[in-house]
Amino acid sequence: MISPTATLLISCPDQRGLVAKIANFIYANGGNIIQADQHTDFTAGLFLTRIEWQLDGFNLPRDLIAPAFNAIAQPLQAKWELHFSDTVQRIAIWVSRQDHCLFDLIWRQRAKEFAAQIPVIISNHPDLKVVAEQFDIDYHHIPIIKENKQEQEAKQLELLQQYKIDLVVLAKYMQIVSGEFIVKFPQIINIHHSFLPAFVGANPYHKAFERGVKIIGATSHYVTDHLDAGPIIEQDVVRVSHRDEVEDLIRKGKDLERVVLARAVRLHLQNRVLVYGNKTVVFE
Amino acid sequence: MISPTATLLISCPDQRGLVAKIANFIYANGGNIIQADQHTDFTAGLFLTRIEWQLDGFNLPRDLIAPAFNAIAQPLQAKWELHFSDTVQRIAIWVSRQDHCLFDLIWRQRAKEFAAQIPVIISNHPDLKVVAEQFDIDYHHIPIIKENKQEQEAKQLELLQQYKIDLVVLAKYMQIVSGEFIVKFPQIINIHHSFLPAFVGANPYHKAFERGVKIIGATSHYVTDHLDAGPIIEQDVVRVSHRDEVEDLIRKGKDLERVVLARAVRLHLQNRVLVYGNKTVVFE
Amino acid sequence: MISPTATLLISCPDQRGLVAKIANFIYANGGNIIQADQHTDFTAGLFLTRIEWQLDGFNLPRDLIAPAFNAIAQPLQAKWELHFSDTVQRIAIWVSRQDHCLFDLIWRQRAKEFAAQIPVIISNHPDLKVVAEQFDIDYHHIPIIKENKQEQEAKQLELLQQYKIDLVVLAKYMQIVSGEFIVKFPQIINIHHSFLPAFVGANPYHKAFERGVKIIGATSHYVTDHLDAGPIIEQDVVRVSHRDEVEDLIRKGKDLERVVLARAVRLHLQNRVLVYGNKTVVFE
Amino acid sequence: MISPTATLLISCPDQRGLVAKIANFIYANGGNIIQADQHTDFTAGLFLTRIEWQLDGFNLPRDLIAPAFNAIAQPLQAKWELHFSDTVQRIAIWVSRQDHCLFDLIWRQRAKEFAAQIPVIISNHPDLKVVAEQFDIDYHHIPIIKENKQEQEAKQLELLQQYKIDLVVLAKYMQIVSGEFIVKFPQIINIHHSFLPAFVGANPYHKAFERGVKIIGATSHYVTDHLDAGPIIEQDVVRVSHRDEVEDLIRKGKDLERVVLARAVRLHLQNRVLVYGNKTVVFE
Repeated sequence: MISPTATLLISCPDQRGLVAKIANFIYANGGNIIQADQHTDFTAGLFLTRIEWQLDGFNLPRDLIAPAFNAIAQPLQAKWELHFSDTVQRIAIWVSRQDHCLFDLIWRQRAKEFAAQIPVIISNHPDLKVVAEQFDIDYHHIPIIKENKQEQEAKQLELLQQYKIDLVVLAKYMQIVSGEFIVKFPQIINIHHSFLPAFVGANPYHKAFERGVKIIGATSHYVTDHLDAGPIIEQDVVRVSHRDEVEDLIRKGKDLERVVLARAVRLHLQNRVLVYGNKTVVFE
Repeated sequence: MISPTATLLISCPDQRGLVAKIANFIYANGGNIIQADQHTDFTAGLFLTRIEWQLDGFNLPRDLIAPAFNAIAQPLQAKWELHFSDTVQRIAIWVSRQDHCLFDLIWRQRAKEFAAQIPVIISNHPDLKVVAEQFDIDYHHIPIIKENKQEQEAKQLELLQQYKIDLVVLAKYMQIVSGEFIVKFPQIINIHHSFLPAFVGANPYHKAFERGVKIIGATSHYVTDHLDAGPIIEQDVVRVSHRDEVEDLIRKGKDLERVVLARAVRLHLQNRVLVYGNKTVVFE
Repeated sequence: MISPTATLLISCPDQRGLVAKIANFIYANGGNIIQADQHTDFTAGLFLTRIEWQLDGFNLPRDLIAPAFNAIAQPLQAKWELHFSDTVQRIAIWVSRQDHCLFDLIWRQRAKEFAAQIPVIISNHPDLKVVAEQFDIDYHHIPIIKENKQEQEAKQLELLQQYKIDLVVLAKYMQIVSGEFIVKFPQIINIHHSFLPAFVGANPYHKAFERGVKIIGATSHYVTDHLDAGPIIEQDVVRVSHRDEVEDLIRKGKDLERVVLARAVRLHLQNRVLVYGNKTVVFE
Repeated sequence: MISPTATLLISCPDQRGLVAKIANFIYANGGNIIQADQHTDFTAGLFLTRIEWQLDGFNLPRDLIAPAFNAIAQPLQAKWELHFSDTVQRIAIWVSRQDHCLFDLIWRQRAKEFAAQIPVIISNHPDLKVVAEQFDIDYHHIPIIKENKQEQEAKQLELLQQYKIDLVVLAKYMQIVSGEFIVKFPQIINIHHSFLPAFVGANPYHKAFERGVKIIGATSHYVTDHLDAGPIIEQDVVRVSHRDEVEDLIRKGKDLERVVLARAVRLHLQNRVLVYGNKTVVFE
């Protein structure tokens, strides 16, 4: 519907005139802002904003926008990212044996809910190769045991480079990614099958069943080297009862997992998520 | 926590430079924007925004802000409202016989969830006088029948003027307010006990029971002269089952009604609701 | 986990001793009840129950259960159905052009969430043949226009008989099924893309957008010859805002539609839905 | 609507014929069952049931029901409770300084949502005496410090006996009740202001804010001597965003807390909650 847009995600120490300065930069170059949203974290003294404008009629060529904006950002001590809406990001989906999130992500990409490509699926198991073939996506089986983790992660990293991957989505990968890996490739979104921080770690549905909770949840977050403790992007829940066995929790949870993960991936791809500290601002 | 602020709610035909012009006006006068949110309705070609800034350090005295901003707004063909956060609005609560919304609104006002005064309660029944007395609020019993509606509405209007009322909240008033009245006093928020537009009109819980729905809802909206068809501010729902009799729907619905109405009143009092056409933009 | 079970769904005029009589019938024949649930509709004077027991150790052979229970049911003027949990029902999925519910139903059947077979897909468009082929399911393209509706429905009916279909699932079929058809094949579940009875008929998302609702929904119901007015099995909702264009409502709605339809189909397949009048009792 | 009823809550080792035996006991004495629900915990090998029947026309006098049923229950090794719907339970509400749950419980009791009396409020602070007076309820201020906890709990226990209390509701009491106290008076329902087991202990809203969750919750549970780890009766959640400061979480949480606590108290008063192990079966 809308022609290509540029988006700035900015965080900087709060001060007077920030909105004016940023808006002036866009207006002075002929840009039409279509969405501007902002948040001030008073505790941290931080101003956080997302501004999106139409490139149609914008006088600066794309490659000059970043240097031009840098001149404004530096005196403000701003951290910022610039994105273009017609950049097609490349996703690697990592899976283990469960196929529900994988199917869902592929379906959404085919249905154009995601402006992204999915050139490769990586797994520590061979089980889902058949799905990859069904949708004509490359599949790499990289089995991981304690002893070979380091070298297998090196292979995974190589694949990410080879496939020019922008984002790794852990679609029920069920393995811990090492801190060293994350340093080298930090853009990783995970789906955890509980309402974090309840039930961190393995077997959250079994733990939820044991505890007798009346609601279960799923959480999508960026991966950090603290297990299940990265910045949360999206969460959702569903009601359960004493009638639900562990297998019912797992089944109901699957519906949550795929929707929560898909929402998080979509928000990320639309450059609507700004991470600061261990939190996110989600500009919806 | 925050010193007094000013808020502009603006709608105008979309064009380049709107954010810049408005932000510049505030920055040029030394204001610090603490929240700016904006929405473009592409179908209507409308730009809608809410900007809130600290008055502390703002160079324009309060009474000059409106004329100064008018000079900017007129060439943009903008419709706009200016509000100050320390203005204490005065609410008249209109009730019939049910007390749950009334109690809830009074409790929230006492708990400082609303920055407002509630000097008067108006009712077509005498039943809730006792509540008014308990909380030391004036109570006016104005019984209404078909034959005296016009003259009773005149009395109601007189009371609103006498008590310097800014907002009427129909907290289960169960009577239709005439179009003539609304023209004279348009700031009226109602709670309807269904998920509109399902079950317009009387007895929505009975109708919901008849239809066998699995979810019931409540809707808070501005009152217009089309029954239950005004701009919706807030809605919420709760799950029901075949076990729920009509009286259970009514009981569960009460919990919805008071929360939905309270949220709508709070959003209105914080000047977060911008009405255009028959819709609202809610800047949360 | 559990060996095969038998399930009785019973509705009859309320009277003393119903639970005892039914439970005695099962106990006397050595059955172990694993779930018994019951509901009394006092307005209608109706007793409605679902009883499930293990066939393992039950002394009556399967083909004698119905006649034996009939002797008990007749004096009670009971309407009843008997089902066995290892009966694999056969589903025909009817679609138009949208694939999300179709994909979802097939995925769930493959994932064993449904104990059912899906031997055939019927559509008035050729678009989704490719999906049918991908999953090796027969696909019949039966285009329908006003002039040929009667003869095309005859063809559809023939296919249902040929494929020994127990249940038709309208997975976004977008066509009205005639009253004559429903009489001949009454087991039809539909998904409607609104929170019924709001937005009956075509284009509910456009209507929801026009009305400015803050929540949208989806409804799964049995099909009757009153449009979108059949007994509701399941509903769910999702929050929307002024930021959501019609296309966002459609996208968010798809996630609702597939989950709501899947829940309804699963409940039906597990013989948990008892229809009476224009309502359902859902024994969860 | 319905004449007085008797309710049996039963748990016993699973075996054939349980439903029949219990239903026969009621039928043989002329009782009309109006609700029967049952659950089997296959892992624990436990049968759990709730049966409610009309006393009108029941041949056994009330005081003979328990001994008569005991003759049936003993050979089944059943644990059971017998309740009558017209027994008016007596509640002591314990509070600290916050009034929202207190107001809500009182309002519901006045509105007849609870068939109970509230003769006394106990608090470690004097603040809410004014509310007690407003509604003509006795108020006992029992300040607690580390050094006097034991003797103050003795006073509290004495008050419970004096007022013939059946149930203590901790309506934001914010104090830990000792294990010794719980042994002497085990019927205690608490509201915890988080989605347990996330954020056990003090200041859950601050912890939720720190963690950056997108949803907050409230949990009502029976009190045991493990902090915030007792059997959960009811939970609910509400969505939050980066815009919500700690004070917003607290405000939004209050709406949850009062509804979740009220639901739990109501379910308990209607004898719909069966505790086994550290879990509940809630027969809704």
